[in-house]
Amino acid sequence: MGKEIPSRSEDYSLWYNELVKKADLAEHSDVRGCMVIKPYGYSIWEKMQQALDAMFKETGHLNAYFPLFVPKSLFEAEEKNAEGFAKECAIVTHYRLKNDPQNKGKLMVDPDAQLEEELVVRPTSEAIIWSTYKKWIQSYRDLPILVNQWANVVRWEMRTRLFLRTAEFLWQEGHTAHATADEAVKETVQMLEVYAEFAEKFMALPIIKGRKSEGERFPGAVDTYCIEAMMQDGKALQAGTSHFLGQNFANAFDVQFTNKEGKLDYVWGTSWGVSTRLMGALVMAHSDDDGLVLPPKLAPIHVVIVPIFKHEEELNKIAEKAKEITASLKKQGYTVKFDSRDTHKPGFKFAEWELKGVPVRLAIGPRDMENGTVEVARRDTKEKQVMKIDEVATKIPALLDEIQENIYNRALTFRTNLTTKVETYDEFKKVLDEKSGFVLAHWDGTPETEAAIKEETKATIRCIPLDAVEEAGKCIYSGKPSNKRVIFARAY
Amino acid sequence: MGKEIPSRSEDYSLWYNELVKKADLAEHSDVRGCMVIKPYGYSIWEKMQQALDAMFKETGHLNAYFPLFVPKSLFEAEEKNAEGFAKECAIVTHYRLKNDPQNKGKLMVDPDAQLEEELVVRPTSEAIIWSTYKKWIQSYRDLPILVNQWANVVRWEMRTRLFLRTAEFLWQEGHTAHATADEAVKETVQMLEVYAEFAEKFMALPIIKGRKSEGERFPGAVDTYCIEAMMQDGKALQAGTSHFLGQNFANAFDVQFTNKEGKLDYVWGTSWGVSTRLMGALVMAHSDDDGLVLPPKLAPIHVVIVPIFKHEEELNKIAEKAKEITASLKKQGYTVKFDSRDTHKPGFKFAEWELKGVPVRLAIGPRDMENGTVEVARRDTKEKQVMKIDEVATKIPALLDEIQENIYNRALTFRTNLTTKVETYDEFKKVLDEKSGFVLAHWDGTPETEAAIKEETKATIRCIPLDAVEEAGKCIYSGKPSNKRVIFARAY
Repeated sequence: MGKEIPSRSEDYSLWYNELVKKADLAEHSDVRGCMVIKPYGYSIWEKMQQALDAMFKETGHLNAYFPLFVPKSLFEAEEKNAEGFAKECAIVTHYRLKNDPQNKGKLMVDPDAQLEEELVVRPTSEAIIWSTYKKWIQSYRDLPILVNQWANVVRWEMRTRLFLRTAEFLWQEGHTAHATADEAVKETVQMLEVYAEFAEKFMALPIIKGRKSEGERFPGAVDTYCIEAMMQDGKALQAGTSHFLGQNFANAFDVQFTNKEGKLDYVWGTSWGVSTRLMGALVMAHSDDDGLVLPPKLAPIHVVIVPIFKHEEELNKIAEKAKEITASLKKQGYTVKFDSRDTHKPGFKFAEWELKGVPVRLAIGPRDMENGTVEVARRDTKEKQVMKIDEVATKIPALLDEIQENIYNRALTFRTNLTTKVETYDEFKKVLDEKSGFVLAHWDGTPETEAAIKEETKATIRCIPLDAVEEAGKCIYSGKPSNKRVIFARAY
Repeated sequence: MGKEIPSRSEDYSLWYNELVKKADLAEHSDVRGCMVIKPYGYSIWEKMQQALDAMFKETGHLNAYFPLFVPKSLFEAEEKNAEGFAKECAIVTHYRLKNDPQNKGKLMVDPDAQLEEELVVRPTSEAIIWSTYKKWIQSYRDLPILVNQWANVVRWEMRTRLFLRTAEFLWQEGHTAHATADEAVKETVQMLEVYAEFAEKFMALPIIKGRKSEGERFPGAVDTYCIEAMMQDGKALQAGTSHFLGQNFANAFDVQFTNKEGKLDYVWGTSWGVSTRLMGALVMAHSDDDGLVLPPKLAPIHVVIVPIFKHEEELNKIAEKAKEITASLKKQGYTVKFDSRDTHKPGFKFAEWELKGVPVRLAIGPRDMENGTVEVARRDTKEKQVMKIDEVATKIPALLDEIQENIYNRALTFRTNLTTKVETYDEFKKVLDEKSGFVLAHWDGTPETEAAIKEETKATIRCIPLDAVEEAGKCIYSGKPSNKRVIFARAY
């Protein structure tokens, strides 16, 4: 079928790239570093959006929309944030093209249409949002503000990879404002929990909740919380972050409020986001050498029905049965595709739907019609069984639940097997090189040690787990005392 | 309450601007011409999106996402399209800021980070999408492509107004590719019908379906279809357009396919879009001097319950009843808000929810509690009635349907009254100046006449109605023969 992809063991990186393209998730565009998210890929992203959006609303947030552009003077107001994003941002300087007198039919930037102030295409929206919040907030009665935005952002990354790192990507960014530090920290942690629940329940992705070290913090944040997941090559992927901003942005944009005691104070903030990067995580965590393995809760198509037939008459009979099955599953909220194409053989179709990660495949041939049965194949384990057609409506939903659970458990087992406690730096390097995965080790808490280890091994501190056990130990690098282990890994 | 807005008769334009701001729909941002869509406004836009998205999917379309940026060489490929948008587009020329050595703490565009090719922030996506479709289409088997995109676009308008004309706005843009002209025209008309149905059923907005004259066509289209609505000042507002692109973009981007006969041919295209402009139409078509009047199908809150109480004990009892009412309506898909604030008087709350356009208000006081009744006020007519609490669950849904219908009918009557047939140019000018509204008149079909009338009266041809009756007549301007009337109006 010309859709073969390399195996993971052959070349994991190439396997990923080819799979994303061949399964119609995304492709490179004519714009450097920007991708096209294809309909099949986008339909998975829409499922993610729906689930997350419902969770945001349940926790009291509303959506809003802020400008794409950040005037330079606002962009530079919060110094660390500006420093963090200045080196990789797209800048609008002009607002008109005109005919190029040197080149007939070509256009050129009109030098008479230069902007007085340059506009930065948002790499993140803290600056533009906090300059707006200043107008919305006078008193404690205006707080909290609990707002989320679904938007595109641009970071001019030099090395890009589909979904994982692109110049433009889609994301949501929550931006909240609070009267007290305590309330803002609670919000930060609450949203981390939302992300964790989404990753585990919908993406079937086991994650570790933790805090970032100072070196890995969001520019402008006081504290960054994150969820970290393990991919099938043992590398870590940061799947979501939630930042406690302290009063940094309120200070930068002079956002003060009168508190209950009648005194002026600066507002406390949070921001939190997940992006289309999650699409990359979904692919790399579960898929195999035959293609995507999608957790049923995010699969655009839950069940595909492939008819096995020689004559049109046979097809018509099977189509009738397929219609009944589709109706009974649709009623329960499942999407069913009947692949009746007569231009392709069943084997081709099987491979195509495997590539696309459809969780359950039903095959119905003339003998099945006689026996009132159907062949059921699950994508995750490739196991097949014969099922009575009458039972499909009750057994398939149960099977989909089982698949969702199995994918999660498989990823959890994988992660457990690739998580290693080490006591020495030699051991640490050996595990990274020979086994990979997460390495639990003691660290002295200094940025210097973190930087040295990163320099020598390319491993970074993924997070300080929230549930890390208090335990006396010695830093693997400096030998200085430490009271808990952190997670090191090489990462995407 | 400090939320008063001017009346429509006083200053229609100011009434609109103030209403949009005071009702928390949108506000100006710190970026020239760009707006902030506030949570309440965005929640209406979300309702529009949901309804439209469902209709797009029912007609076989899938969503996808294409890059925000269009490289200049692609932008200029379709000449008319380029010409149409070149004069008002945002252009990215650099990809990095650096510290400004002259100004401590300030940033400047890094001259060493100039792009080799400038990027235009999409004003519309035909160029970037057709350059992608070239990769997707080889044979008739790859057709049709039925894709929609929800996105932000930027047009550097000099005079902006919230929702109606902003430098950045949100929209959806459908882009389809077909094997035959006939199929593409059918798609164009189908999507016009979808827009018409959405406007009438959800927005309660009567519209006229028609085709644009050559002078008002989308740059790059062969034919532009539109729906036109009338605002309460008699001006027209274009509420959606659907374009038959012919083979123009296929030619510009060399998108050819092998047809069923094995011959190479250029692909036929359509594009169609509606934007956050619809928010402006919604406000201007239905609202009154007290605030928004929202059609129930797009109202974020359907029913507000205002308790009338003196003591907390009374409030608690009313709250219990309100809870029952809320539950019974929520089950049926309605959103209910119980406004239990003790910081504001009922009169203040009444005015606030009227301003925000909540279709139905329930007031419950101690006497209502005794009698088992509730006072029901509808927003559209301001009529009040007393209702048994037991009947709320059945009667309120019916009332909401009635309100939806009434708002539509009211707008239709308004439009009918302000639609005038004229036979002479004098009559034409008199109607425009003294009565305003839609003017049905004969036109000789030439761009020259159209331009002259526009120049002299500021009225444009809104559309040539699809259902225009064949009727011999003379052009009001040139006296030349004409066989149908077109709609002239001053327009937003």
